[in-house]
Amino acid sequence: MFKVIKKYENARLGEFNTPHGTVKTPCFMNVATAGAIKGGLSAYDLKDIGCQVQLCNTYHLHLRPGDDVVRDMGGLRKFTGFDGPILTDSGGFQVFSLAKLRNIKEEGVTFASHIDGRRIFMGPEESMRIQANLGSTIAMAFDECVENPAEYSYAKKSSEMTVRWLKRCQVELERLKREEIAVNTQQLLFGINQGATYKDLRVENMKMISELELPGYAIGGLAVGEEAAVMYEIIEAVEPFMPKDRPRYLMGVGTPLNILEGVRRGVDLFDCVMPSRNARHGHLFTSQGIINISNAKYERDENPIDPECDCFACRNFSRAYIRHLQKAQEALGLRLAVIHNLRFYNKLMEDIREALDNDRFNEFYREKKDVICKRI
Amino acid sequence: MFKVIKKYENARLGEFNTPHGTVKTPCFMNVATAGAIKGGLSAYDLKDIGCQVQLCNTYHLHLRPGDDVVRDMGGLRKFTGFDGPILTDSGGFQVFSLAKLRNIKEEGVTFASHIDGRRIFMGPEESMRIQANLGSTIAMAFDECVENPAEYSYAKKSSEMTVRWLKRCQVELERLKREEIAVNTQQLLFGINQGATYKDLRVENMKMISELELPGYAIGGLAVGEEAAVMYEIIEAVEPFMPKDRPRYLMGVGTPLNILEGVRRGVDLFDCVMPSRNARHGHLFTSQGIINISNAKYERDENPIDPECDCFACRNFSRAYIRHLQKAQEALGLRLAVIHNLRFYNKLMEDIREALDNDRFNEFYREKKDVICKRI
Repeated sequence: MFKVIKKYENARLGEFNTPHGTVKTPCFMNVATAGAIKGGLSAYDLKDIGCQVQLCNTYHLHLRPGDDVVRDMGGLRKFTGFDGPILTDSGGFQVFSLAKLRNIKEEGVTFASHIDGRRIFMGPEESMRIQANLGSTIAMAFDECVENPAEYSYAKKSSEMTVRWLKRCQVELERLKREEIAVNTQQLLFGINQGATYKDLRVENMKMISELELPGYAIGGLAVGEEAAVMYEIIEAVEPFMPKDRPRYLMGVGTPLNILEGVRRGVDLFDCVMPSRNARHGHLFTSQGIINISNAKYERDENPIDPECDCFACRNFSRAYIRHLQKAQEALGLRLAVIHNLRFYNKLMEDIREALDNDRFNEFYREKKDVICKRI
Repeated sequence: MFKVIKKYENARLGEFNTPHGTVKTPCFMNVATAGAIKGGLSAYDLKDIGCQVQLCNTYHLHLRPGDDVVRDMGGLRKFTGFDGPILTDSGGFQVFSLAKLRNIKEEGVTFASHIDGRRIFMGPEESMRIQANLGSTIAMAFDECVENPAEYSYAKKSSEMTVRWLKRCQVELERLKREEIAVNTQQLLFGINQGATYKDLRVENMKMISELELPGYAIGGLAVGEEAAVMYEIIEAVEPFMPKDRPRYLMGVGTPLNILEGVRRGVDLFDCVMPSRNARHGHLFTSQGIINISNAKYERDENPIDPECDCFACRNFSRAYIRHLQKAQEALGLRLAVIHNLRFYNKLMEDIREALDNDRFNEFYREKKDVICKRI
């Protein structure tokens, strides 16, 4: 199902054959929280951006419109019109970051919806049932997402519970598929490595979950708050214990530089809201560094955001126009900015794959690493 | 420049040859206030919607980004990427509806910007200079837009002043074109008929402005508040005095039924923010009447908004998905709703033209008039 085509030190050029199409890796997955990318992008814009995988959020879709509605509409791919692979997260991260009044037990988590405050229970089985209704290509295991820094003893207990939860996820998803309750009876389950910032816990956890022979493995809980250096160290510690023949997904990461560093350390899949969040603030990624389109110097600038970019915004509109739209709070301003930033991320992955294919990833890394996140 | 191809009683099928392309009339012009349609639509979406003329607001663009910026960027067509004809209003309507602390004199109006409160003076010459900078295809005369109901004596004075203002507009725009200050040296000026709801004032005003032999004439000041019946009566009173060989534009109107009734009475051009404003509230026009997409009955509805519609939203997405996006306040929900409503308006005009061409406008009118604005 997953094939490493080429390696360059730890970096991997790969192909991940899913029931809904082949994903070339390294790959950035584009976040469509409630079934649509922020800024008014549709599945058709995603195609134009070069998006291979759409990521949707289980927690949001469970609350609204309800996963039963999505199931009745034929699953997320039919509902959103995106015909490629879709990954759904488990809801765990949102339960631990957005929801209120949490109560965590071995069975699962009781929490209050951030929309209307109603009490909801979600455990491994519930998460699998919701994701089975959503009909995604890849379902993520339900995990406790511990906030860093965490106490060692808490992190240990939590990561052990997450392993037990993962086993329950595996059993439940198999049942849902076998009994044809799942919209997608070929749905894949990825396990998630946890253990906070403790290398020994991370390694121990990774060893345990790798035994379950899942179709993919993620490193979770690293996108929130800790230093990039800590994140890189943990990837380096865990990576040797990740199955070589399965895709590896670094959840919620990150800046273009984080991604380059992740690829160098053997990661294949990424996702992050940064491209759309930065777009909202007028921070646009370019081949020369990050520009702030609100800056007065772009008032009469006839150039596209990035002359090297081939996105819809850069093909058709000037910095001056996009700056005006952002200042006037016209929805088109955000839309063009999001399209551009997402295209930047997807094009970065294309360039990384090309560099790997041409055995020049290190040169590429050196050329890009200082410029890619520089504010200009 | 304007040619009536066919008449059906008072209704006219026509062709308006502008320096920036031919407009088939009757035509609905699509409102891109600050240089972009609300909901995140670009000039390229407008093409897909079948938009012939983009309408931009002088007042908004003068304040932001500034008409000098637009001029330096090559004018509105280049700035926004819309390569068809663009009409700019005069700023008058916004000065009288949005701006605060107005002081009206023979010279013009002093007012406070609704953005930052700064004092601005705008008279006929200023409006022409701004519109010359914007480089629109059609500039509208600067008029006083009197609120209805108005005192007879005030309406009389105001409509007489508006005639004097129109003459000043004509002189100033000729100068700006002759001296090649105008971005578009072939810019056309439309006069605006005023006179509140008094037929004698309207007729007298129309007689006076028709003598100026302008390339087009508008009926202004009728979209705000008064009964549709009053509006129709005034159109009927004024129409016989409008030049037969010039396009006629009913400003800011209206519902699909208003448009049908306007066409019947000899109007060629329309504009209105209703399609996008209704879209914001989930009110979507269909061939069966107006639906509210938020309605619970559409929760699992796999049909497009209108099975008879060929817009991007109807070609690709279900009512259930669009309803979900609207409820979740996803920008894509508004975008799809605006695309649909604007396509509905533009398609209505295509159907009107076809009915006129096939000598069956009255049948078309009778088929549509009861269904077109019905809430279902």
